[in-house]
Amino acid sequence: MLKAAVVLSGCGYLDGAEITEAVSALIALDRAGVETLVCAPEMDQLDVVDHLRGEPIPGKVRNVLSESARIARGKIQDIKSVTAVDFDTLVFPGGFGAAKNLSSFAEDGANCVVHPEVERLILEAFGARKPIVAICIAPALLARVIGGRGAVPLLTIGNDEQTALALDKMGARHQNCSVLDCVVDEANRLVTTPAYMLAKGPGEVFEGIDRAIQAMVRLATS
Amino acid sequence: MLKAAVVLSGCGYLDGAEITEAVSALIALDRAGVETLVCAPEMDQLDVVDHLRGEPIPGKVRNVLSESARIARGKIQDIKSVTAVDFDTLVFPGGFGAAKNLSSFAEDGANCVVHPEVERLILEAFGARKPIVAICIAPALLARVIGGRGAVPLLTIGNDEQTALALDKMGARHQNCSVLDCVVDEANRLVTTPAYMLAKGPGEVFEGIDRAIQAMVRLATS
Repeated sequence: MLKAAVVLSGCGYLDGAEITEAVSALIALDRAGVETLVCAPEMDQLDVVDHLRGEPIPGKVRNVLSESARIARGKIQDIKSVTAVDFDTLVFPGGFGAAKNLSSFAEDGANCVVHPEVERLILEAFGARKPIVAICIAPALLARVIGGRGAVPLLTIGNDEQTALALDKMGARHQNCSVLDCVVDEANRLVTTPAYMLAKGPGEVFEGIDRAIQAMVRLATS
Repeated sequence: MLKAAVVLSGCGYLDGAEITEAVSALIALDRAGVETLVCAPEMDQLDVVDHLRGEPIPGKVRNVLSESARIARGKIQDIKSVTAVDFDTLVFPGGFGAAKNLSSFAEDGANCVVHPEVERLILEAFGARKPIVAICIAPALLARVIGGRGAVPLLTIGNDEQTALALDKMGARHQNCSVLDCVVDEANRLVTTPAYMLAKGPGEVFEGIDRAIQAMVRLATS
């Protein structure tokens, strides 16, 4: 039985993990017979956004691991306790949390830094040739960590030109992709899908992610 | 095109809406071609639970409408602005939020009271013969509001004896049901499914809810 480590970044698309993307990944993995280990970094969120008004709440503090535990129903580990020995594939849902908490991509674009434990886990998985799935904006993490280390990862974030350019600047090669599809980098064993970078609703998000998970299973078992 | 009002109760199963159930309902509705209107009451949660430790955080306050907006990506209305004219079907995901915020079932069992706006919306939908879907523990709301008003709603919460007994006490008739199935009360136009009252994982939750949504569509279009 395959096992996936799913890395969350909070709970809510404006300051954490995109909830529909995270849940879609967990449903798709479960339906594909893949066991899951959910993890997140123990750290304060960059900010807390009121999702009703779409504005940050000054002075508010929430913890990435505790908020992520809402999606995982408490079955979650601190990412620092996870190594590539524990899983066969690594999965990153999107949401601003990937660009605010797991990295500084939201603020720094192509000059971003990635959370050290996230960087470590990506390098461990990549080095062990375990497939990595990145959804929505999360491919930016792969561009930053894997790009420019002798490999040129082939990735998609949909078709947003500015974001695509930032990925290319970090050493990746961007390929446009529709919301119902995914881009598979066979050589580097990476699967990416646009989800809410393009989706008009949760049905499209689920379909694209389900397809990405199926592509990952094919890579992991071949 | 059918339109569903989906009533949320926060964001996280211990103090709000069960996230996988809420997202599964939204995915299943979207895939069935049903438009959605998400709503929640503007009120403080009964409590705020740290989902990492499973314990309430004394003194913490979160707002049901703002937290629900995390699942709805900000596209949400105050329930008091919604009437049965706005939708063809009413959907209640589960989670302790249904029993702590939308009603007092968690504390008071068969003697619970239901939030007045939730009660109003259920009575409006029931009176207009619009199908109502209730997931996990949310059938308790239907037992309380519809039971004993000349109708005996046929409902399921899975197979938990104590909860089933409480539903019967409120004037409903409980029927055991497996997680992948749903109970359809044709006469009263109610569909209920156990989800995380029984589910071992998100795949089962999605499958049972998808089945319930399909049963609802059949009722709404016949």
